[in-house]
Order: sequence, then C-alpha cells, then structure tokens
Amino acid sequence: MSIKCSEKEIFNISDFKINELNKKAREIRAYTITAISAANSGHTGGSMSIIDILTALYFHELKYNPKNPDWEDRDRLFLSAGHKAPALYSTLGLAGFFDINEVVKLRRFGSGFEGHPNRFKVPGIEASTGSLGQGLGIAIGSALNAKYENKKYRVFCIMGDGELDEGSVWEAAMSAAHYKLDNLIAIIDRNNLQIDGLTCEVMEIEPLREKWEAFGWKVFFCDGHDIHDIVTKLHYAYEVKDKPIVIIADTIKGKGISFAENNYRYHGIAPKDGLEGKESLKEALANINCDSFSIEKAKELLGNVCQYQNKVNDLVEKNIPKFSTDYFWNKSDKMKVEMFPNRSGFGKGLDFIGEDKRVVVLGADITESIKMNSFYQEHKERKSRFFSFGIAEQNITTVAAGLAKEGKIPFIGSYGVFIAGRNWDQIRTTICYNNYNVKIIDAHGGISVGPDGGTHQALEDISNLYYLPNMKILVPADSIEAEKSTIIMKNINGPVAMRLAREATPLVTSYETPFEFGKANIIRYRGIQDNFIDAFDYKLSCDYFSENEDLAIIASGPVLTEAMRAAYILKEEYNIETRIINNHTIKPIDEDAIIKAVNEIGKIITIEEHQVGGIGNIIAGLVAKNQIVKEPYKFQMIGVKDRFGESGQPWELMNIFGLTAEFIAKSSKDFLNL
Amino acid sequence: MSIKCSEKEIFNISDFKINELNKKAREIRAYTITAISAANSGHTGGSMSIIDILTALYFHELKYNPKNPDWEDRDRLFLSAGHKAPALYSTLGLAGFFDINEVVKLRRFGSGFEGHPNRFKVPGIEASTGSLGQGLGIAIGSALNAKYENKKYRVFCIMGDGELDEGSVWEAAMSAAHYKLDNLIAIIDRNNLQIDGLTCEVMEIEPLREKWEAFGWKVFFCDGHDIHDIVTKLHYAYEVKDKPIVIIADTIKGKGISFAENNYRYHGIAPKDGLEGKESLKEALANINCDSFSIEKAKELLGNVCQYQNKVNDLVEKNIPKFSTDYFWNKSDKMKVEMFPNRSGFGKGLDFIGEDKRVVVLGADITESIKMNSFYQEHKERKSRFFSFGIAEQNITTVAAGLAKEGKIPFIGSYGVFIAGRNWDQIRTTICYNNYNVKIIDAHGGISVGPDGGTHQALEDISNLYYLPNMKILVPADSIEAEKSTIIMKNINGPVAMRLAREATPLVTSYETPFEFGKANIIRYRGIQDNFIDAFDYKLSCDYFSENEDLAIIASGPVLTEAMRAAYILKEEYNIETRIINNHTIKPIDEDAIIKAVNEIGKIITIEEHQVGGIGNIIAGLVAKNQIVKEPYKFQMIGVKDRFGESGQPWELMNIFGLTAEFIAKSSKDFLNL
Repeated sequence: MSIKCSEKEIFNISDFKINELNKKAREIRAYTITAISAANSGHTGGSMSIIDILTALYFHELKYNPKNPDWEDRDRLFLSAGHKAPALYSTLGLAGFFDINEVVKLRRFGSGFEGHPNRFKVPGIEASTGSLGQGLGIAIGSALNAKYENKKYRVFCIMGDGELDEGSVWEAAMSAAHYKLDNLIAIIDRNNLQIDGLTCEVMEIEPLREKWEAFGWKVFFCDGHDIHDIVTKLHYAYEVKDKPIVIIADTIKGKGISFAENNYRYHGIAPKDGLEGKESLKEALANINCDSFSIEKAKELLGNVCQYQNKVNDLVEKNIPKFSTDYFWNKSDKMKVEMFPNRSGFGKGLDFIGEDKRVVVLGADITESIKMNSFYQEHKERKSRFFSFGIAEQNITTVAAGLAKEGKIPFIGSYGVFIAGRNWDQIRTTICYNNYNVKIIDAHGGISVGPDGGTHQALEDISNLYYLPNMKILVPADSIEAEKSTIIMKNINGPVAMRLAREATPLVTSYETPFEFGKANIIRYRGIQDNFIDAFDYKLSCDYFSENEDLAIIASGPVLTEAMRAAYILKEEYNIETRIINNHTIKPIDEDAIIKAVNEIGKIITIEEHQVGGIGNIIAGLVAKNQIVKEPYKFQMIGVKDRFGESGQPWELMNIFGLTAEFIAKSSKDFLNL
Repeated sequence: MSIKCSEKEIFNISDFKINELNKKAREIRAYTITAISAANSGHTGGSMSIIDILTALYFHELKYNPKNPDWEDRDRLFLSAGHKAPALYSTLGLAGFFDINEVVKLRRFGSGFEGHPNRFKVPGIEASTGSLGQGLGIAIGSALNAKYENKKYRVFCIMGDGELDEGSVWEAAMSAAHYKLDNLIAIIDRNNLQIDGLTCEVMEIEPLREKWEAFGWKVFFCDGHDIHDIVTKLHYAYEVKDKPIVIIADTIKGKGISFAENNYRYHGIAPKDGLEGKESLKEALANINCDSFSIEKAKELLGNVCQYQNKVNDLVEKNIPKFSTDYFWNKSDKMKVEMFPNRSGFGKGLDFIGEDKRVVVLGADITESIKMNSFYQEHKERKSRFFSFGIAEQNITTVAAGLAKEGKIPFIGSYGVFIAGRNWDQIRTTICYNNYNVKIIDAHGGISVGPDGGTHQALEDISNLYYLPNMKILVPADSIEAEKSTIIMKNINGPVAMRLAREATPLVTSYETPFEFGKANIIRYRGIQDNFIDAFDYKLSCDYFSENEDLAIIASGPVLTEAMRAAYILKEEYNIETRIINNHTIKPIDEDAIIKAVNEIGKIITIEEHQVGGIGNIIAGLVAKNQIVKEPYKFQMIGVKDRFGESGQPWELMNIFGLTAEFIAKSSKDFLNL
C-alpha cells in the first residue's frame, strides 16, 4: 500500500545516509533484543517492528538536545504503545540521552528502565505511558499547546495497530481534526498482530485509510522498514496544512529476528535464555547482523546485568527481616508447598462451568495469559461461545451486559487496571445499575505482576469495585480457591468480580478445605509438617471457637499465604499464636468473623496487595461502626503506601514493598510490643 | 441528504396510516411536553426530536407485546441517549405498556419515571441507560445473542449526535461490523445541537456517512420527522446483509415546539412554569396541536401530579424526625442563611485565577452548568484558552495531561460519575502516574443532583479518586469555600480534584473564615443569632483547644452545613455540645484533627453524601491504625447505604436518604444513648 518516493534528493538524504541509518537501526535492534533477553521478559515483537521508524525519527528527523532533554523547542515523541519501550530506550541511549549500556537493565528493579516508559526515570521520555489508547490524547494536548503558543515544535505519536481497538483513540482522533493539528503526526505500527492473534481476527480495524480520513486526518502509508520511505512520508506530512497526519507504517512484528517475525507468540516474550541454541539471543543477534555489536559485547552486557542484579538482590536481602532460620517457601525440607498461579485455578473452573451453555466468554486480547482460553481449549465446540473484542474494555463490558440481559452468563477479563478501571463507568451504570449477570475477571492484581511495572499493577481495583451497589467481590488465595470461586461466581445472579494474580504462589488449600461465599475461613498454625498445607487447621468462621490467640491477621488473595507463613514464623520464633482470617469474599465481607476477632483478640493486622486501606479501611470501618468494642483494640494495616508499583521480579517487589511473611512477622512482633 | 422513497405501497403503508402515525406522534409530543413541564426539568430538545422515530418504530415497525414486555421474540429497542426518556415513556404508555396518564409523574420521587430510564421501574424499558455511549454496546450484546441463538428479533439503538463524541461508540461500532450484525439498526438523532451549542462547534463529528462506512456499517439517511421516510429506510435496513445498519435521521431539536426548535438552551430545560405566557406549556401544546390532548387534559394531568407530589411530601415529611420547633433552613426569622450552589463559588474562583495565562479550560459539553464558562464570561479574550472537546471525558483527561506537560494548568470537569469514573484509567495512568498538573472539577456530586436520577448522581467519586497516588481532593462546603479551593488548587502543583454540588446550599462561611489546604476547621455552635453564620465559631484545627464536647461530627461538602444545623438542634433541644470537623481536604486528610477528636471526645459521627464508608472508612482506618486510642470510642457513619440514587427533588432526596440535620441530630442523640 505504500507509495515509494523516487526523489531522494529533495529530502536531502543520500544512499550513504540511508546506509548509515540502517546500520543504526541494526545497532538499536541488537541492544533492544539483548535487553529483552537479559530481562527474560518484554515485548520483542512490537519493539522490533518500530525500530526503523524510531531510527528515522531520532537520527534524521527530530530536533532535540540529548544534553537538555527539556529544551523547549524540541520535537516531542510520545510512545502510546508503551510496551515497546525497549526500542525507545535503546534509541534514546544511542542518541546520547544516557549511557546506552544501561539499557540492558531493562525491567530490573531500580534501573529506571521500567516495563513501560516512566518520564521521571529515563531522560528523553516525554510522558509515562502503558495503558493503551492514551498517548494520542497527550500528544494532542502537546500539539494544541504549540498551536496556542505559536511554537514550531512538531509532535509525533507512535501507536500500535491493536491499540486502534480502543475507542479512546477515535475519541482523540476526532478532536485532533477539530483543532486542525497539522503539527501532529501519528505513526501506526501496522504489524497486523496483537496478543491474541491476527488483528483482522481479533478485531478487524480495516479499512484504516477510510477510517482516518473520515476522522479528518491526512493519511500516508509507508514501508515501516524502509527508512527512505519513512523519511519521505514524514516530509510529505510536514507539508500538510490544517489537518493532523497519520502515517500507517506496514511493519513486521519481530522484524529482524527470523524466529520472532510475524510470530504472535513473540508479542510479549523474550528469546530463550542464554546464548546458545534455537531462538536464543545468539540466533537473534546473528539475524540482526550488527557490525558494531558482537556476541562478546552481548556477553559483557549480560555480565553487567548479573552484577546489577546481585546488587539488587543484596539490597533486597539486607532489607528482609531475619529470623533463626530461613522460612522462605521451600527453603527447608519441611513445610513444602507447590506453586501455581491462581489464574490457573480460574482456568480449571472455567473449563468446568463452560458446560453450562449460558456461559459465554469475551476476550480482550489477553485471553491466554489470564486463562480465558481454558474455556474452549479442551472443548473446541465452545469456541462458538467465545467472542473476541480486542483491546476494548469499555465495549466488552457493555456487550457483556447485553448478552447477560438475554440470559447469558458472560465472563470478561483483563489486567485489573483496565477491567476494573478503564471501564469503570460501564461497570457502574451498565452492569451494576442494571444488576446484570456479568462476571469480571480482575486479573494480574497487585505488584506481583512484576516486570511490566506500575502501569500494569492494579492497586486500586478493590476500592473501585467495592463501593458499587450490587457488586460482589471474591479474592481467592490460591489456585484451588480460584477454581471454587469461579464455580461460585457463575452460580450467583448479578455482577461478581474476582481478583486474580499473575505469579505462581503457594497452594495452601485443598478441595476439602471449607469454602463458602461470604464466609471467612479461620486458619490456625498447628506445627511443622512435611507439607505446609498440613501444618494448618481450616474452619469456616462460624464453626470456629476462640483459642484466645495473641493476634489476628486478616488477608485475602496470595498475600494470605504470606500471612500463614508469618503465623508459622511467629509461633516458631516467639510462640505467638495467630488467628488468620481468610476473607476471600471482600463483598459481602464476613463482618461476624472480624468483629469476633476484635472482641476476642483485640489485636488486628490487615494485609493487602493493594493501596493500603482499600481493604483495610473497610475492615476498620466495620469494626468502628459496630460499636461492640468494649476494650480498646489495636489495629495495623499493611499494604502499598499510596504509591505506584514499579518493575522488578515479583518476589523482589513483594519484599521491597514489605508484603512477604518476614515483614508481616516483624511488624506483628513490633505491633504486639514484644 | 435523505433519499425519499416514492413507492409507498411496497412497504404497505398508506397515506391514511401515515396520517394516523403523525397524529400519534402529536399525542406523544403532548404527553411528553406536559410531563417535562410538570417535572419542571428534563430534556425537551432531544425528547421532541426523536418522537417521530419512536412513533414509526412502536406504532408501525417493532414486534412487541405490551402485556408481556419480556416476550422472548420481541424486537429490542435501546435508548442509548437516556436523557430522552420522556419521549420513550410517552410512547410506551400510548403503546399500552402502562397507563399513559402516569408519565406526568416524570422525575418525581417514587414514580419510576426516572430522569433516565430504569429497566426495573418502567415496563418496556430494555436496559437502564443514561451515561452516554454505552447503549450501542448493550445493543450489540443483544444482537450477538440473537445471531448465536438464531433468533429473529431485531435490535434497535437510538443514539444522539453529541453522543458520537464518545470513543466508546466507535469502539462498539467496530465490533458490530466485526460480527456482521445485520440484525442491529442504530438510529442517530442528528439534530446538530448539544448542550454547549452546535455539534460542529462543540466537536465536529462529520462526515458521518464516511465515518460509519469506514467502520463497516451500511448507512442510510432519513428525514427524522417524515414518518414515511423513516419507515422506508427501516425497510431498506432490513434488507441489508452481513453489516450493521445506521440510519442517520435529520431532526430538529425541540421539534414541534416553536420556541424550543433549534434552541440549544432547551437541551435540558422545561417550558416555563404554568399554563400562561410565552414559552409556556400552553404555547407548546398549541404548537403541537394534538386533537386528542386538550388544555383541559393538561390541567387535569398537572392536577394529578400535584396530588401525587402531596403524597410524596407527606411521606417524606412524616419520616423526618421532629423536634420542638422546625429547624429547617430559613423557617424562622432567626438563623437566616443565603443559598448558593457551591459550583458558583468555583465559577468566581475560576474567573479570578483565569488571569494566570497558564490556566486553560477544557469543556466537556456541560460548560455552563458547571460554571466553567465563568472563565471567559467577563473576559472574552480568554476564549482562546477555552477548548471544547464535547462529550469526551477520556480524551479531555489525556489532552489536559498533554497541556499540563507543556506548562499549562488545565481544568477539566463534568458530572462526577463521568469525570471521576468514565476516565478513571486516564486519571490514573496519564495524570497521576505522570503527576501532571491537571485540575479535575468533580461536579454534581451526590444525590442532591436530584431529578436526573441515579445514573447522574456521583456516589463513588471520592473512593475512586482517594486511592490514586499523587491525587489531592478538596470537598468545599459552600460557595466561598469552593472559591477559595479553586485558588488553592491552582497553586498546588500536581493533580487536584474538587467535588462540587449542583444544588443551592447554605452559605456558612465567609471570606474571613480560616481555610487552609490539608487542615480541617473546627466549628462550634455558640447560640442563636439573626444569621446562621454568626451562630458559629470557626477555627483551624491546630488552633483549637478542646471544650470536652459530647460529640464530634466530621463532614465535608454541603452536608457539612447539615452537620452544623444538627449541632444547633442538638444544643437547643438536648444541650449537647458538638465539635464539628470540617474536613474540606479529603486527601491529604487532617489526621491530627480527627485523632484529637477521638481522644478528647471519643464519640465520632461521619457524614458523607457518598456511598457510606467512602470517606467514613478512611477516617475509621486512620483512627484505628494510629493506635493512640486508650479508651474505647464510639463511631458511626451516615451516608448512602450501598445503593444507587434516584430521581426526586434535591431536598426531598436528602431527607429520604437521611442526610439532613434532623436525621443527623436524631442519630446523634440515639448514638449518645440519651
């Protein structure tokens, strides 16, 4: 679709320069894939597909000063599809904003090279992005400012094609035309793939030319891997008057790395660990074939990363409270646990309840990751009850409502930030006000999401959902609770949300463990066993009689397992008896269990992998207002302290944010003034 | 643009039938305008513009059974632009779903004829709607279900043209084409006006044909007031295969009522009170000229409404706790207050701070109502710093971020549901994560919004905003506090939200009253005065010394004035001394003031015009976790009890929801066990 330009000279770009730029692109590719490889996570596909565009921009087109990133008259570039950050980092490094060798610390805690760009941490980043469909609006604000102030800077915005599923893009597009922002150039990385597969299958976005033209934009096409063509179309764009410009760049996802090219699996994964073998960094670098980036260079950089990580490890380790022994999961030959992500339990549950013909599943382009695919994996006939909607959280919410209205039981899901936030008004007005029977899978909750960083770590989802009338909320601790919760939520009529985690966490319950909606479990540590799970008693709160414990800890979700381990530490180290209250149902919460604990024990700690108080304040509120407290009680909340998450390894972050058992145990001891 | 069809016969519609339908439309218009007039509020413009469409649908096209509204094979109609409910109510009434004479109870408490349609309250309403841009998604869900189940019902969705500003419409539109929903017919009420003015000026949505075609829809145009043309295009639509259909109906806002036609002021207001004079119901009915609806009929219906309202009044009145005298505002010749909506104070503040060239204002099609227009009203040169974005809360949020990034101080605002909910992810990721200097006017908070009903009454805005890092929140009690808060929020760097109310509420502070960001005021009742405001002492919390009061009441926003009146009642009736804590700053909250109250008084009541606990739990949490409580304390929360609001008069609702001083005083007395 691209129109090749044969008049190279008019843009003052020689073959020699093009060659140089292509070399630069290879260098960016080499650093980028090495960084992703070093991180062992990250978005290979999209990063590779935008590198030639970034090269053309940063090494031929943009005005900027790497020594003064805030130079007022610089051109602005916004990376709306923030997950392609590794490519931008390498580009900025090679453009002189910082030492390029730093980029291999990608997604490491404290490095600043977050999974999604953070403007406070990396020079040259114009705005922190990561939630799709928001960058164009920021760019419009910046371009509008230039118009108003009569500034000459240009504004560029790189978007993904999958991102065009988001209505917010079209909402923004309309306004850019309304304000005739001819200083705004959007570039679409049209690689035809998104997480769930081909864009035309996940959600057809074509005809793109007609769409953008109808929204009042001037449209150009280019070959997104032909730097000359990119530059040409940029220069065409500069000539446009009174209209914003979009350049649709035909690209190849994973471009330059044979095994990643056009391979949707490489949307969000790194090449295989290590430097050897198929689909390894070595193979990738061989494909890229960058003169100035040898395999030795890669080894050196990977070595630097190891050193950096060792420092992080030391820092984290030093900060962890110490006890007479190492109580961490599976560190001794007793108290063993298996680890599963609780999203897997949801998958099993969904597989089971899928038999009910009323169950339908709506995909938001993250189907496999949150185990929505378990619905049809073993039952191909159920594919007819799976509906793909792409990256369109608002729309799946209202469509689910329409399906529920007609008697279906729709499940929708995505990262918690997006499925309990992006669509908040839809949940409120269309689902809750109508009391429609829609099930919300609030996946990837909490900081343990890990290297994706703050934009993708839901820490406000519970408070967003809790205050909505008619909503019910489950937060299962482990895979088995998630499976049970899935079956329960299907059987409840009306809106129900379930929060899940991304990471593998300990399995601490069994199919035999009592589990009732709206009823907390009381868990008591009884002494060391071979298996962690056997070291505890589990009872429904209504069946439990006080043992006059020293302390009650209230938790739900995977942090419950940390609370259990804290109880184990507290008993073994200090002979402290802990009543653990598993309030897996956040709404309606088991008030009796909590009030009993206050009356019987009077010392309460709440733990949440959420902004502190999101759950803790609810508990504090119900205790306070019940007015049953005859004696003063002590109350402490542990959670995330009014801050965003950041990139790092899940367990690293859990320690850094003070949410593991060691911190809970130490806090508990201090709290009890022992 | 519409193509007239001359072959009437093929659709089996005679001139006689057309005449009948036109008569029916006049009847619907007469009932609709009488209902709006009786309500003295409501959306005249849009209701009138869709009536011929509704007539064609309900009296010629749709399959339904008014005696069995849930008949499985009925055609479904969704009114996405829910504010046009009055027209739908009259249509359904005349179609036999209920007694048509009931519709004049429009917007009255308990009548079911909510300001926006509620599916639980009116037979024939397919889904509760009201937040724009959500109906199409519901319709898609319903149409998708028909496809999957091989059902023959058709799905219709009526949308406004201003509504097309919302990206969610385009997100939905894309998916309807993806699923080839040829059983879905969207009808756009293209009346060219939205609240802020002409759609082409507020936000240009043209070219609509090209937009919809590019999104994969089959497009027809019709004259939305020519029933034959409407029917013709509907029949064309039925023939379309493999595509959803949109019919763009050229309409006239306010159609049929000369003074309302093409008058954007009549978007959301009723004809003048009474039956006489210019722009009265009488004139409207004369314009409509419906044979079967005489002025006597109107009088009779208005009489019925009076009777109904008397019953509501009795019900409400009976429920209000009684004291030795009537303490309601301005009921005696002492303790007088003036009443102003606190949004007016914001307007004054905005007018003042507008001098700062960095201040820019972004309009979301509700500019005048929330006093955003005060920015330029007296300073026409500032119009260049006002940017209209239409009904596009997501986009103004990100555009504001982009402007803030470039050094501007952007103010955005809308109904709280939309500006602290619809755009939640944009506030989180683009504003708060970036810590951009954007100011959010969270207007029309609480149930006191009144007749618009539950969809428009923000009751979860504070909890949505509170848990966002970097966010600060102000909730001014009155107009003067709102003015001060506006100046303060401009001077704070970073995101700040201010919650405002719609209704006129008492002015209880003065320019001299101390007011510091983050610092509560302590207010004490000192005895009856001529003016309410003089009956109280006001001090900054840090300057206040305990008087060992009997009770502390914590409040912010207009309910603070109810708390003050409650203190007055409590003192006069029971000699109870109340410390009123005005925590106008919700984040960061004045912990010291609250903890001192707990320690010094030990009896705390929180009041909030919000889902109960949204603020109360925050206060309970900080008290609980501060561990300073040596004695047991008593705590009570007053607020909205986990339910949506509903239509009614503001003061009526405040009483029904138990948020006025009488209820607070009674609760307080009970709470103190007196």
